[in-house]
Amino acid sequence: MNNIGLRLLSGSSNKPLAEHIARLLNVPLIQVELKRFADGESYARIGENVRGRDLFIIQSTSPPINDHLMELLILIDAAKRASAARITAVLPYFGYARQDRKSASREPITAKLVADLISKAGADRVMTVDLHSGQIQGFFDIPVDNLMADKLFARALSEELKQNLVIVAPDVGATRRAGALAKDLKAELAIINKSRPKQNECVVLNVIGSVQNKNCLLFDDLADTCGTLVHAAHALKEKGANSVNGFVAHALLSKNAVQRIKDSSIQTLFTTDSIHQKSIGETTKLKVVSLADLLAKAIEYTHKNESVSSLFE
Amino acid sequence: MNNIGLRLLSGSSNKPLAEHIARLLNVPLIQVELKRFADGESYARIGENVRGRDLFIIQSTSPPINDHLMELLILIDAAKRASAARITAVLPYFGYARQDRKSASREPITAKLVADLISKAGADRVMTVDLHSGQIQGFFDIPVDNLMADKLFARALSEELKQNLVIVAPDVGATRRAGALAKDLKAELAIINKSRPKQNECVVLNVIGSVQNKNCLLFDDLADTCGTLVHAAHALKEKGANSVNGFVAHALLSKNAVQRIKDSSIQTLFTTDSIHQKSIGETTKLKVVSLADLLAKAIEYTHKNESVSSLFE
Amino acid sequence: MNNIGLRLLSGSSNKPLAEHIARLLNVPLIQVELKRFADGESYARIGENVRGRDLFIIQSTSPPINDHLMELLILIDAAKRASAARITAVLPYFGYARQDRKSASREPITAKLVADLISKAGADRVMTVDLHSGQIQGFFDIPVDNLMADKLFARALSEELKQNLVIVAPDVGATRRAGALAKDLKAELAIINKSRPKQNECVVLNVIGSVQNKNCLLFDDLADTCGTLVHAAHALKEKGANSVNGFVAHALLSKNAVQRIKDSSIQTLFTTDSIHQKSIGETTKLKVVSLADLLAKAIEYTHKNESVSSLFE
Amino acid sequence: MNNIGLRLLSGSSNKPLAEHIARLLNVPLIQVELKRFADGESYARIGENVRGRDLFIIQSTSPPINDHLMELLILIDAAKRASAARITAVLPYFGYARQDRKSASREPITAKLVADLISKAGADRVMTVDLHSGQIQGFFDIPVDNLMADKLFARALSEELKQNLVIVAPDVGATRRAGALAKDLKAELAIINKSRPKQNECVVLNVIGSVQNKNCLLFDDLADTCGTLVHAAHALKEKGANSVNGFVAHALLSKNAVQRIKDSSIQTLFTTDSIHQKSIGETTKLKVVSLADLLAKAIEYTHKNESVSSLFE
Amino acid sequence: MNNIGLRLLSGSSNKPLAEHIARLLNVPLIQVELKRFADGESYARIGENVRGRDLFIIQSTSPPINDHLMELLILIDAAKRASAARITAVLPYFGYARQDRKSASREPITAKLVADLISKAGADRVMTVDLHSGQIQGFFDIPVDNLMADKLFARALSEELKQNLVIVAPDVGATRRAGALAKDLKAELAIINKSRPKQNECVVLNVIGSVQNKNCLLFDDLADTCGTLVHAAHALKEKGANSVNGFVAHALLSKNAVQRIKDSSIQTLFTTDSIHQKSIGETTKLKVVSLADLLAKAIEYTHKNESVSSLFE
Amino acid sequence: MNNIGLRLLSGSSNKPLAEHIARLLNVPLIQVELKRFADGESYARIGENVRGRDLFIIQSTSPPINDHLMELLILIDAAKRASAARITAVLPYFGYARQDRKSASREPITAKLVADLISKAGADRVMTVDLHSGQIQGFFDIPVDNLMADKLFARALSEELKQNLVIVAPDVGATRRAGALAKDLKAELAIINKSRPKQNECVVLNVIGSVQNKNCLLFDDLADTCGTLVHAAHALKEKGANSVNGFVAHALLSKNAVQRIKDSSIQTLFTTDSIHQKSIGETTKLKVVSLADLLAKAIEYTHKNESVSSLFE
Repeated sequence: MNNIGLRLLSGSSNKPLAEHIARLLNVPLIQVELKRFADGESYARIGENVRGRDLFIIQSTSPPINDHLMELLILIDAAKRASAARITAVLPYFGYARQDRKSASREPITAKLVADLISKAGADRVMTVDLHSGQIQGFFDIPVDNLMADKLFARALSEELKQNLVIVAPDVGATRRAGALAKDLKAELAIINKSRPKQNECVVLNVIGSVQNKNCLLFDDLADTCGTLVHAAHALKEKGANSVNGFVAHALLSKNAVQRIKDSSIQTLFTTDSIHQKSIGETTKLKVVSLADLLAKAIEYTHKNESVSSLFE
Repeated sequence: MNNIGLRLLSGSSNKPLAEHIARLLNVPLIQVELKRFADGESYARIGENVRGRDLFIIQSTSPPINDHLMELLILIDAAKRASAARITAVLPYFGYARQDRKSASREPITAKLVADLISKAGADRVMTVDLHSGQIQGFFDIPVDNLMADKLFARALSEELKQNLVIVAPDVGATRRAGALAKDLKAELAIINKSRPKQNECVVLNVIGSVQNKNCLLFDDLADTCGTLVHAAHALKEKGANSVNGFVAHALLSKNAVQRIKDSSIQTLFTTDSIHQKSIGETTKLKVVSLADLLAKAIEYTHKNESVSSLFE
Repeated sequence: MNNIGLRLLSGSSNKPLAEHIARLLNVPLIQVELKRFADGESYARIGENVRGRDLFIIQSTSPPINDHLMELLILIDAAKRASAARITAVLPYFGYARQDRKSASREPITAKLVADLISKAGADRVMTVDLHSGQIQGFFDIPVDNLMADKLFARALSEELKQNLVIVAPDVGATRRAGALAKDLKAELAIINKSRPKQNECVVLNVIGSVQNKNCLLFDDLADTCGTLVHAAHALKEKGANSVNGFVAHALLSKNAVQRIKDSSIQTLFTTDSIHQKSIGETTKLKVVSLADLLAKAIEYTHKNESVSSLFE
Repeated sequence: MNNIGLRLLSGSSNKPLAEHIARLLNVPLIQVELKRFADGESYARIGENVRGRDLFIIQSTSPPINDHLMELLILIDAAKRASAARITAVLPYFGYARQDRKSASREPITAKLVADLISKAGADRVMTVDLHSGQIQGFFDIPVDNLMADKLFARALSEELKQNLVIVAPDVGATRRAGALAKDLKAELAIINKSRPKQNECVVLNVIGSVQNKNCLLFDDLADTCGTLVHAAHALKEKGANSVNGFVAHALLSKNAVQRIKDSSIQTLFTTDSIHQKSIGETTKLKVVSLADLLAKAIEYTHKNESVSSLFE
Repeated sequence: MNNIGLRLLSGSSNKPLAEHIARLLNVPLIQVELKRFADGESYARIGENVRGRDLFIIQSTSPPINDHLMELLILIDAAKRASAARITAVLPYFGYARQDRKSASREPITAKLVADLISKAGADRVMTVDLHSGQIQGFFDIPVDNLMADKLFARALSEELKQNLVIVAPDVGATRRAGALAKDLKAELAIINKSRPKQNECVVLNVIGSVQNKNCLLFDDLADTCGTLVHAAHALKEKGANSVNGFVAHALLSKNAVQRIKDSSIQTLFTTDSIHQKSIGETTKLKVVSLADLLAKAIEYTHKNESVSSLFE
Repeated sequence: MNNIGLRLLSGSSNKPLAEHIARLLNVPLIQVELKRFADGESYARIGENVRGRDLFIIQSTSPPINDHLMELLILIDAAKRASAARITAVLPYFGYARQDRKSASREPITAKLVADLISKAGADRVMTVDLHSGQIQGFFDIPVDNLMADKLFARALSEELKQNLVIVAPDVGATRRAGALAKDLKAELAIINKSRPKQNECVVLNVIGSVQNKNCLLFDDLADTCGTLVHAAHALKEKGANSVNGFVAHALLSKNAVQRIKDSSIQTLFTTDSIHQKSIGETTKLKVVSLADLLAKAIEYTHKNESVSSLFE
């Protein structure tokens, strides 16, 4: 499809990131009319001819998640009916990813449902960043490029932070991810395990592994209200940690998360702009690394049929 | 499937209607946990065994429409994975129905997208009321029961109102529907046609047909901001109409619609409880006919494999 | 797909139109063997290599409709198995379009069935002209280009006819279409409404709107036996219309339709060659505008990925 | 599904057979409105409630094949939308079965296309008789009951005919079928092989195997114009055959086939009423065995979930 | 489907377990002919009528995995074409489950492929035990019952073993599973983390968490060659563990695994008969808990539409 | 797709043939890691970027058939997820082809199942050689190129062998194929028919047709244990045949087939390398014609969108 034009289109969830990508690729964003009717129905109309084009639709399904998801699906439907040659849904942040299995009977598997909705609407491929679990790729029958911001971050970690480093999984579910980073960096590993020793007693955070006088890096894919991170940081400090930093690919920062970070033992929380961070100015503790360069390259390589995995070698 | 138990389950969009139906059928609503996470993700868990049951999920996709739609899809997914024998999605109000064709190039056909999403999630059948256009039934490959509140309303119309009656289509798109009612009631028909005689001039409402000294009934499937109805009523009065009433199956009443009705020439606006009417107490001009009886019967007949169309004979 | 050869193939329903298109595009029609076996089975064999080609199969599903539809499906199946890169089914006339919703219980939705058959056989896209209802586009998951002969006709309408013009919907179902044309032409609108005032009385045609001394243009998508048009013309004349002309995109002219037109108050009935008009010579009242230019351009633009909607701007 | 009512519905292709089956099962045929519009469009409306019923639609796709096929598809669509619990398409004769593979490049495989159309329309199962090739069962993903009229016929063959019997395949393609019957009856086998010894010479029918003074039974699944059978009979007689009879499950008898049979060396041509035989009275050489009993039992067994293959043990 | 007979059918992978289940349910196994042709093609023929039956096909996809998987698919296809009402594929061991995501570029996701193959063959539901990852449920669109042998085992754990207990994840990937068990049992948690401190140095097993004088229970879903378990046990002993036991739901015991266990520091390795254990007699260190009771109940509850999750409450 | 690179990839079933094709096309085989885990699970990883490439995966599903089939499916899944533009599964030998219909009740149709598995895994097209029955093409919805080694062989037959030639179908099922070759070569036709004259008596091979002093060519698509061929040759010799040769496209040569051929009356058995013939050196009676040239051309023509059927004209 080398000879087919590359086109970029942005939903309303993260315009600054989409514009950044467009600048890097030197391809203007396609005009699109996005609006809500009086009753809240989403509406989209693509403003330019996209017939036979290789179209990338950039939309994080960040909060308000159902509105952003529906907008994405409508854009895909419009593009399909407008005869785009190939539609790639680019979700820097893939919402609902944590609902990827039944943890209780009669639960849905909403991440699979979302995958089905995206495919059914007409996407030919998906590009995303640091999926909550690798198995979500298998929820799709279409190709998925799961870009690893983790890897880029690990490379970029300052020498200072790398000294005496322990990668800490803030809960048991994050261990696999933390273990992989520890292996990459030849760092040690620790895990925070929540337990409730006896009925009626409080939850206790057990630090499994040694952290005394170490530089701790809390590592997870996502921070929502930041409660887990903040409590974990506190427990690490109590166990004698020298410093506590954090990295999460996706920072939802719901409710009073920013204030919590400010008030916490966390030195710096590194994250990306997969979700548009409106509160970035409220604290110096939050450091945002842009995904624009990574996504721009991945889009370009996909368009040119070059190896995307080569970006991580 | 006579021997399989009937079960009712309600989403969060119209609990009062679902409870009303449940009372009429003498079948309790299934327990369900519905919540939103801090970041706005919808979550649903069905609280009782539904294996092999004939399950009806009642959810209008009224505003906030994307949240209500996603909740419906998640409930269907949960029911499917929980091994319900048959899942009927009951949408007293089917949102996005007006987006049922491309009126401009590169538009989506969102009503078809919604139909696909409901099917893909796992619904076996759909029940709804007064669809915006009959063709939407054809968007589904699964059976759809489109109940006609119109017909019930027509039967219930008072003798007084039937005197000297003209059915009025408030715009050209409503003519087919208004014409059918006029035929049923052996009433006359009139149409309001918007036009803009010359560039730079205002839109003019032309009343096509004779309304002088007549009792006018504005008739449409849906009222949103009520602008069209209110202006139409004004035009009818100017043309000498004796009285102006209205009937719409679905009353969204977005923005300041209720105030507009209050201030208008409309005597009474009849509607249904397909959408939960929170502002019902604000004006005596709004009269709500409940769909509970109709839906309860249709659910029972569907469950017992009796003819649903017989409800309208 | 710019570099893939454009190929045209014609079924047996409208060879003259296909040949006209081929001449305009300067692309010969692909050889194809079309025959019926002794028992009536249709057979088709494509006579030339179509591997990797961008193939357009031109076939109106005009009467004998089932034979023409089956021939189209067989041609698509043959093309798919012969490895065509892309198959566009071009239906200048899309039969069964009027059966697009259930008007009574236990009816099929045959237009949806036909859409499914065309997709299942293997078509990648559909091109058609003036669909009976826009929602039929939504019956397809594949892209549909619905060309608007209406718009071209409206542009071409003589200045003389435009004077003092009223667009007339010959029945209630045609109002939306007539209203749109009236808006375009800044003409007035009238509607013919059939009613049966009392049981045992005859059907009466009510002309809603003013037509006295006006030039009336009856406007619909399709004329079959022409009964509706002829009666409408009569009613308009009785109401004092100055002249009555008609435009329908598709003229089936079943039974004695041609004779009826000849004997009627209709001055001229304009139509297109979407259906091959064998009886064109029998009356001077029938004027046929060819779709060949429009279809040829739409095929070329589709092949070259240029905007087809630009044809109507 | 024992507790769900059995319902029978007939298309227009073979009403006498359907009525015969209905009498045997003591189940009335469901009322259905079948008509053709002026322009040839097929229309069907099911006249009674079929919700949750176990519905069998009886329709041979005999000539006019495309009309009968389309009528079948429309009936299935109507039944699906009318919420039948299970739809079995009963095709006593399955048209287009001979087009079951590509015998030349760029041919369709129409038998597969027909199978897809039947499935896509909404049939849950198929019942048919003596399929041209067993592989056609594999064209379906839904269960197919292929009833063997051959087997019943073989059992019923008179002792007289069984004496000194040779089963003859009238052409090479029929050898497998003839061989199976010969094995069953412990009879001998012969094959008629057409060849054209040299360019420009006539086709010669070679009888492979010995037939002198034998009672020959020409055996095939289908006779169309009967040319093959008649020529084969002639060749067998020339080779000294004592008598020549024939059995074909499906007798299309296109063109002047009946006259040909009358004028031929064939003593009796046995067939079934899979296709309604209007010309049955024209010759005593044609003997029709009714499938009604076999189909009635197969329908009853299918409905009651009893083994259909037990009918042939 | 209460009134439809329950039927059991076993593939060749684990006949003893299937027979055990059949005895508990007092339902005989359906006769089935299973064979391999000379060239290795698998063949299956179901020996009894299964029309309209509720059929459970019991087959672990244990080694030789591809043969057992293909046999399962063939049995499902045969059952589908033989008109079974419902087909549940019961896989006590679900092979290929570890290949559930791409751990390197251009890898397949074979667990998803297997899920697709099972669905495509015609299974209506799946029952399995202790899936490697919960997300695999999401690979299916059909309902999956994932029975938790873990939970049953945890309940059955002797009081003695529960004293001073540490649940140990033998590698990082098993942490989530081990953490859940630790929470259930209010036990402590430890993790074995493999690392390679410097290039060219050996892999080191780090025990994260305290195990001195504790009773360690290595806990994972599956043991293959048992290398990981044996090395982990050694490391735990070196760190001063009092005792080391193990539990894995599925014991493949490839290569010389049994000998390795015998020679190891592991006191007892508990497992199930999800895979037929031929080498059970070779060592007293291997203790097999039968799944027959759990599976029999789950099959019965599924058949009777009772809650399967209630088995674990 | 002319501008997209052609890529070849080989499974493990017939590396020599794949390498031969690669040499002829001057395109190196893509690196691929193929292995089996300790428990027998197949694993594949494609070693080079295949994004947007036109990929041909060469794999005969020869014995061990289930392993080779699964490997093929896994390779297709990997290629699909690695974003190949088009995946053609090239099966020089298509296993399970003989199971193409139900010859007894409750049998599977495994050839259809295999077709479905290949499509579901993600293949876009299939290329194969001398399918057991042409109808198998119809099992696929994707294009299938069925190359005719028969035709090439027929052309290549020496003049000497063509003298006085009779084509012999070794059993009734092979008659159609043998008849077609006889027609091509203007040779005579004979058939071997197995029968068991009376209960308790042995099977007898009847030679139908005249073979005395003729050069017999036994002709079939496949030889497995060669029992049929060897016995047929013996019967032909007994009937006075001058010489007996054989041609089968696919030689499985299971069990002691090679020895049987050596000991038989067959002069030479011609076959192809569709299956890798390891025992080729064991007898001079086996002559292998390579398919490499035919497959290389067909791959090249497919890639370049040239007519593949032209190879046989």
